[in-house]
Amino acid sequence: MNEQPTLAQLAETLGAQLRLAPGARGDQVPAGLNTLQDACENEVSFLASANYRRFLADTRACAVLVTEELAATCPVTALVVANPYHAFALATAIYDKTPQYAAGVDASASVHPSAEVHSTAYIGPAAVIEAHAKVAEHAVIGAGCVVGEGSEIGARSRLFPNVVIYHGCYIGADCSVHSNTVIGADGFGFAPSQGRWTKIHQLGGVEIADEVEIGACTCIDRGALGNTVIGRGVKIDNMVQIAHNVQIGDYTAMAACSAVAGSAVIGKHCTIAGGAGIVGHVTIADRSHVTARSLVTKSIDEAGSYSSGTPFSDSRSWRRNAVRFGQLDQMARRLSELEKAFAASLGQVTDNTPRGDLE
Amino acid sequence: MNEQPTLAQLAETLGAQLRLAPGARGDQVPAGLNTLQDACENEVSFLASANYRRFLADTRACAVLVTEELAATCPVTALVVANPYHAFALATAIYDKTPQYAAGVDASASVHPSAEVHSTAYIGPAAVIEAHAKVAEHAVIGAGCVVGEGSEIGARSRLFPNVVIYHGCYIGADCSVHSNTVIGADGFGFAPSQGRWTKIHQLGGVEIADEVEIGACTCIDRGALGNTVIGRGVKIDNMVQIAHNVQIGDYTAMAACSAVAGSAVIGKHCTIAGGAGIVGHVTIADRSHVTARSLVTKSIDEAGSYSSGTPFSDSRSWRRNAVRFGQLDQMARRLSELEKAFAASLGQVTDNTPRGDLE
Amino acid sequence: MNEQPTLAQLAETLGAQLRLAPGARGDQVPAGLNTLQDACENEVSFLASANYRRFLADTRACAVLVTEELAATCPVTALVVANPYHAFALATAIYDKTPQYAAGVDASASVHPSAEVHSTAYIGPAAVIEAHAKVAEHAVIGAGCVVGEGSEIGARSRLFPNVVIYHGCYIGADCSVHSNTVIGADGFGFAPSQGRWTKIHQLGGVEIADEVEIGACTCIDRGALGNTVIGRGVKIDNMVQIAHNVQIGDYTAMAACSAVAGSAVIGKHCTIAGGAGIVGHVTIADRSHVTARSLVTKSIDEAGSYSSGTPFSDSRSWRRNAVRFGQLDQMARRLSELEKAFAASLGQVTDNTPRGDLE
Repeated sequence: MNEQPTLAQLAETLGAQLRLAPGARGDQVPAGLNTLQDACENEVSFLASANYRRFLADTRACAVLVTEELAATCPVTALVVANPYHAFALATAIYDKTPQYAAGVDASASVHPSAEVHSTAYIGPAAVIEAHAKVAEHAVIGAGCVVGEGSEIGARSRLFPNVVIYHGCYIGADCSVHSNTVIGADGFGFAPSQGRWTKIHQLGGVEIADEVEIGACTCIDRGALGNTVIGRGVKIDNMVQIAHNVQIGDYTAMAACSAVAGSAVIGKHCTIAGGAGIVGHVTIADRSHVTARSLVTKSIDEAGSYSSGTPFSDSRSWRRNAVRFGQLDQMARRLSELEKAFAASLGQVTDNTPRGDLE
Repeated sequence: MNEQPTLAQLAETLGAQLRLAPGARGDQVPAGLNTLQDACENEVSFLASANYRRFLADTRACAVLVTEELAATCPVTALVVANPYHAFALATAIYDKTPQYAAGVDASASVHPSAEVHSTAYIGPAAVIEAHAKVAEHAVIGAGCVVGEGSEIGARSRLFPNVVIYHGCYIGADCSVHSNTVIGADGFGFAPSQGRWTKIHQLGGVEIADEVEIGACTCIDRGALGNTVIGRGVKIDNMVQIAHNVQIGDYTAMAACSAVAGSAVIGKHCTIAGGAGIVGHVTIADRSHVTARSLVTKSIDEAGSYSSGTPFSDSRSWRRNAVRFGQLDQMARRLSELEKAFAASLGQVTDNTPRGDLE
Repeated sequence: MNEQPTLAQLAETLGAQLRLAPGARGDQVPAGLNTLQDACENEVSFLASANYRRFLADTRACAVLVTEELAATCPVTALVVANPYHAFALATAIYDKTPQYAAGVDASASVHPSAEVHSTAYIGPAAVIEAHAKVAEHAVIGAGCVVGEGSEIGARSRLFPNVVIYHGCYIGADCSVHSNTVIGADGFGFAPSQGRWTKIHQLGGVEIADEVEIGACTCIDRGALGNTVIGRGVKIDNMVQIAHNVQIGDYTAMAACSAVAGSAVIGKHCTIAGGAGIVGHVTIADRSHVTARSLVTKSIDEAGSYSSGTPFSDSRSWRRNAVRFGQLDQMARRLSELEKAFAASLGQVTDNTPRGDLE
């Protein structure tokens, strides 16, 4: 992507139909991408949601990715596509400036003689590739990363600096792992014995399929017995905790600070929002959605959206309500008693009425 | 700060009025600082809160930072200041033993020929300074840190070991970033397409103003389009997650494990307590306070304190009440119906009473 | 553990009574450990919980760790022990393949001349041992780790790669610290002054007793004045935040993503479940248990289990109930009023009844 494309080339790459505005030229070379509101005259934008439609009329962008439906209302050159958000995502790859590295092993890296590093791979400064580890073609191992004994990094996968992969972990092709993430540290397993904890050494590993992206400062623990398994195309954000023997189904996405306890099995195509938690040994159905900060304490058998927590408010109101939370069971019982007593009183009235009638 | 000050010098440095106790000498050299309860005879203490006033009479400290108001009750030498807590904070700088490093580039560091490292800066062992990066005067780049392509570290700023700064990130002057924090990793952006996720490459960067302190294992993601922005004098604790395109206003403080989702705008002088969360695309008014572990799900328009969550209790009571939470809407409806029914029954009674009267 | 034991040797090592199944041989060499369901013919399994008893009859394991009580129902060779889970934990040590390192200092490590590294210790590639630091016998300092000025690592303790120990921190013997954990970073202390924050330099350190295990990406901050203290045999999982001056009692376990705010004192033998939080300056009694994601906002004086939060449900139901949470105080007042009004109405009825009687 050294040379940036013209509008016409961009349209071709994105499979977009180019509808030049009067006076516009297909050989214009846009400088990059931006939102409808912030785009300069030489930037391309996109209209992916009805919420942003109001910004279309005034955009200064030189071209906009739009649907056929909205193309007519586009005041500038339109790049007509079926799915503008997806086309925008594809376009970001063109303008991405994440540094690339030429093949080779930095002189300050430590590569064990028994490790297999493909000649097209890059091993950065102070990185360590331990015994019997394998780094496949075009893989990039950033500065300060460690690839543990016997672990494997698939083709075109990239570890950003200071990632640690323990021994016996398998990372597929086309994966990204961001900085300071740790894969394959010991799961948290201890047997209580006479008031102390005896360590359960974690004998399993971690298996990560192809096309997985993992954010920064995330932990994926190795299995106790058998592996922790991350499915194909899974996307994991920053500071996510995946405990030992968790399984995450293909194409599931987990936002930042979410956490999954040991041996939980999460289905395919799930979306776990930021800060959500899933306790151990539960099963989550495919296509489940868990909302931000919710704690899932039981298995989810049906696709759907799941939540827990309380709404926020000013602290004074909150405190008044929160105190009542501690009285809820008592309130519920009082309500039931009152219902019964009232019903009984109506019964009395009913009883009384005849009696009254008898008078 | 090689030579420690005498009491008199300390008073001068802190702008304190020295009121020597009988027999005390201004040329005494205190060994350090401590609390009123724990101070030894050669330590200086402080009285910053009425809660600790009861410890003043029995303190063994050689001197105490106090207000004029309380100076008379101080049994030892008083260092009279307007704000003892602030004076204590200033004093901690005098006794701090955090190691300092002489200017120079460690032989094991990797500095790209195109990088600009000021001659007064320090680059630690195995640190990496990538192409076109700049490290300003008296900056300290700890062991194993990476400063990515074109990124800049301002004057006197310090990265503790193993911090990773991605490409295109700007850190101001007089900042501290603690170990294993990651700045500029990709924001979490993917466009769904046919059950898969297409990556939205994150084209923006991170801008951090002067006098910002950032704790350990914290993540500040780069912007998707445009930058993530951290204002002047912001203080961020450990394991804080700042998503792409977040803006944090000047002098806001965020405690450990708090998290802010994408494009949220947090005002100035806010205090976000530990574990609090703020969802994406909201705006938080200046001087807002969010209490520990609260989740802010909407914009906050007015300064104030905001909370969510439930009080804790013994698990048995909690379970009884928590079950009722799942019945709350039903309870509310039953309460309303009961109110209506009761009012109606009173109406009957009222109707009856006259009838009774008529009898 | 280079050579794996025979069944007879395994029994001896674990203090188990070997009851060979018909045709089984004590000189069989099992390949490893597995669950009852997943074990192959050459793996040893264990029955530690009644929940798994149903898997015993069909297991393919060559031997099973069982209690005397259940040994008779074991279809294969029984290894009879008093506590099968504990025996399993001991057995994991035998089959653990975590790489070990021979004594020596890697050529790419930086060891300050004033540091004391025992001749039996291992210092990995690009690791840094600063001035006056001490690394005791058989300690293992992984690649990219930093041991700060004057800090000490006890005998047989192991830092996995990229751990950072700041200056003035003391780690006991037989400890493990997993990758990218940070010990001794500054506690979060700032004094407000005229709308800005003045740093309170953190003058204390961190003291970690023997036999402590700490997970990956965890932070244990140094004390402000005096040390943060972690007791003997404490087990801490990944991404746990321990703030300045916290004290954690012996043999307490803290699961992933739990957090403790400044100066909290946690007792001995406590279990803090995943994601639980404990606010600052509270005291938690020995043997307390805090359930997952609960927030402890006050001291706990008695051993027991403690919780907060709400149950999860489908988002639609949850939303209906959560809205009512914001009306709880009002509901409680309405309930009380209704109770009073109803009682009063009954009073009227009671009053009326005699009157009725009088009629």
